[in-house]
Amino acid sequence: MPKKKILLNAFNMNAVGHINHGLWTHPRDRSAHYTDLDYWTSLAQTLERGKFDGIFLADIVGVYDVYEGGPETPLREAVQIPINDPALVVPAMAHVTRHIGFGVTSNLTYEPPYLFARRMSTLDHLTRGRVGWNIVTGYLDSAARGMGLAQQIGHDDRYERADDYMDVVYKLWEQSWEDGAVVRDRAARIFSQSGKVHRVKHDGPYYSIDAIHLSEPSPQRTPVLYQAGSSSRGVDFAARHAECVFVGGQNKQLTRSIVEDIRARAVSFGRAPDDIKIFAGITVVVGETERAAQEKFEEYRRYASAEGGIAHFSSSTGIDFSQYELDEPISYVKTESMQSAVEAISKKSVSGVWTKRKVLEQMTLGGRAKPVVGSPQQIADELVSWIDEAGVDGFNLTRTVMPESFEDFVNLVVPELQNRGVYKEDYDPAPTLREKLFGGGRARLPDVHVGAQHRRWQENGAKQTVEA
Amino acid sequence: MPKKKILLNAFNMNAVGHINHGLWTHPRDRSAHYTDLDYWTSLAQTLERGKFDGIFLADIVGVYDVYEGGPETPLREAVQIPINDPALVVPAMAHVTRHIGFGVTSNLTYEPPYLFARRMSTLDHLTRGRVGWNIVTGYLDSAARGMGLAQQIGHDDRYERADDYMDVVYKLWEQSWEDGAVVRDRAARIFSQSGKVHRVKHDGPYYSIDAIHLSEPSPQRTPVLYQAGSSSRGVDFAARHAECVFVGGQNKQLTRSIVEDIRARAVSFGRAPDDIKIFAGITVVVGETERAAQEKFEEYRRYASAEGGIAHFSSSTGIDFSQYELDEPISYVKTESMQSAVEAISKKSVSGVWTKRKVLEQMTLGGRAKPVVGSPQQIADELVSWIDEAGVDGFNLTRTVMPESFEDFVNLVVPELQNRGVYKEDYDPAPTLREKLFGGGRARLPDVHVGAQHRRWQENGAKQTVEA
Repeated sequence: MPKKKILLNAFNMNAVGHINHGLWTHPRDRSAHYTDLDYWTSLAQTLERGKFDGIFLADIVGVYDVYEGGPETPLREAVQIPINDPALVVPAMAHVTRHIGFGVTSNLTYEPPYLFARRMSTLDHLTRGRVGWNIVTGYLDSAARGMGLAQQIGHDDRYERADDYMDVVYKLWEQSWEDGAVVRDRAARIFSQSGKVHRVKHDGPYYSIDAIHLSEPSPQRTPVLYQAGSSSRGVDFAARHAECVFVGGQNKQLTRSIVEDIRARAVSFGRAPDDIKIFAGITVVVGETERAAQEKFEEYRRYASAEGGIAHFSSSTGIDFSQYELDEPISYVKTESMQSAVEAISKKSVSGVWTKRKVLEQMTLGGRAKPVVGSPQQIADELVSWIDEAGVDGFNLTRTVMPESFEDFVNLVVPELQNRGVYKEDYDPAPTLREKLFGGGRARLPDVHVGAQHRRWQENGAKQTVEA
Repeated sequence: MPKKKILLNAFNMNAVGHINHGLWTHPRDRSAHYTDLDYWTSLAQTLERGKFDGIFLADIVGVYDVYEGGPETPLREAVQIPINDPALVVPAMAHVTRHIGFGVTSNLTYEPPYLFARRMSTLDHLTRGRVGWNIVTGYLDSAARGMGLAQQIGHDDRYERADDYMDVVYKLWEQSWEDGAVVRDRAARIFSQSGKVHRVKHDGPYYSIDAIHLSEPSPQRTPVLYQAGSSSRGVDFAARHAECVFVGGQNKQLTRSIVEDIRARAVSFGRAPDDIKIFAGITVVVGETERAAQEKFEEYRRYASAEGGIAHFSSSTGIDFSQYELDEPISYVKTESMQSAVEAISKKSVSGVWTKRKVLEQMTLGGRAKPVVGSPQQIADELVSWIDEAGVDGFNLTRTVMPESFEDFVNLVVPELQNRGVYKEDYDPAPTLREKLFGGGRARLPDVHVGAQHRRWQENGAKQTVEA
């Protein structure tokens, strides 16, 4: 039996600092060139040379202003500010590649579904079915103020709203245009058969719509759905909707329990356990030898910003760490809006009593996860053990020095993984991202997925009687 | 004195049918390939070879459902439905070109300003300052229903809202980040100087915001502003905000009076008359000889759809032309929401008593403007006479058979215009679209522009005392 193949996403953001902060100051780092198209197209080509499954673009709407009560440190250290739109770098990357997928983060709380659905359909067309959507609901008051609200919508309300939003976009993507609607018949002068194009009607608690989807069906219709919610409500949302889930990568045993929980909940929604691919976040520093890797790591460390990391973490948790002494126990009020961040920390990041020192110790490269440092063989051992012990399907590879860290991984780790038979030698020829992840012929959501249940017609074109 | 150079935009849409309907059925037409990136990159390269100033992408949110009370004809004939997002084809085109500008239409009624401003800043970064925004406020009830409203917002209300929206995006683009804010100083570990990044506060009748702009300043900050309003309120809006204005191209004398009106109103807002470049819409069918052009025109006509054109026009005017006999005088109720369309028609398209026959006579290529047909010399004569007699600065060249019509223009008309000294031999080396249109050194809005007045700091970094 062939070994399970490790899936790989390059984790990135249309910004200078993403997870490992401060590294833009490294002399070889080019992350400050994020405004250049060539920076992106060249990265996509490197990753496709390494047979990466996807390049995943995080996003944040808003600024981190919890630490010291303002955005000064994030601005100085370029901690996800400035931050440009992630979707707009995809078309240029798609034009210079053929296989790699593109995950785009979009905050549904602030994007009107009618226009957002068209944007994703357009990307799916232009990439020929290589697009995914990372569904986020946001957590920053600063974003809410940008949108003209006094503060963000409550955490559970956001998920209620998200469920309603998903219903709308599923209907637009899956229900509005039948597969046989577009015929492009020049002789008969029929582009679309209007009888096979349906108005979507939705009158939900948060969203109402009565419209035809503006785009004709794209290769995948619904983009591959990503999610990273770690609160109980967030995991339920992921188990219901997500096809790829991101989990933190701090601890294999804890991660295993999270993975099992997600798969069990997916089954409770009528899905198969492996209908969800789970990616652990990981930072790798690799050298030709262990010693070369350690030296590289020590060199990188000198440019890292623990303060940038902790300013980021302050907004993730809602706790202003600047107020604490190094060894002072950190207490917090568990408010609804910070519930998921607090659950995430208590599960994954810090055990025992929290202190600022413990958090800072995590920040060796300016990010909260400790990097894996070693030779190609050592990195491969570690990745394989994560697959075996934590039950994940692959990794979200976090960047350090750009693009050097991805080049090193492609040049050193990928061949080692291929030699071991745990990584693909070449891409699956199936064109769409969903097929590459789940197998040929599965370009669309599987029938058991909640989104597929919005289809009112069958693949053969016969109308179903299901009511929307 | 060198002759005034004609400006040229290629007018297009991320859709099959744009203005001249039905031509997708022509055997050589490739407009049904609008979902392929190569279709767009190859078009951009053709236009850059022809030294076009810009490729302009129209957009519509909603579907034309006035004709026969539904979208059947538009769907069958692909009359702007399906319609994909225009912004997403720009990055790929930008990657394969260096000079041509990109005008993107976006409906401000439905796009949250905080996210929209970031999207345009991102495009301006990625294109290195080659982006423009065509400001539209929408006019379709079908779009409003897509957004969860029972019907569209009233016409004048839309412009009140638009003025408020413009204040918000000007503040984000011009006021939030000072020019000296981003220093990228690796040694000092300072990416941005937080003291030079300002929170935008706006509490207007329609929009409130309290946020830092998410993007650092792009080459142009505010994209080049395009507008096409033809109602009195719309022309006022254009005279105040727009840097490029589109006018119909039916009649030189009438156009001259519109042009003079726009420039006079611009002056009343403290601007120079030539602070606005005015483009007339025009459809050209050119052949190597007059006879070859006429034959091509007759061949194209056989594929055109007058019914598609009239279905489009029914939504533009709010009049269901299917209800009228050919020679029956057409009466209409002048409602607020259709005021601008009716003003547009009565000024420009049809004189005397309206009939369906008169409208159909305009639809020789499935669009409402009569094409100009002839040899390169004849086309050049006509274009020059428009510049001289109507006072326009250039043309929005409407497509017919794609990409043949643009290739013909580049191969046949451009050399003729260059020979006459009325068209540039090469691009201005200045990098940004605004400089190419208005002269080197003017990458940003000029000081007299309403948007520039939102700057709270001077170019040298000194704070002004102007209150927002």
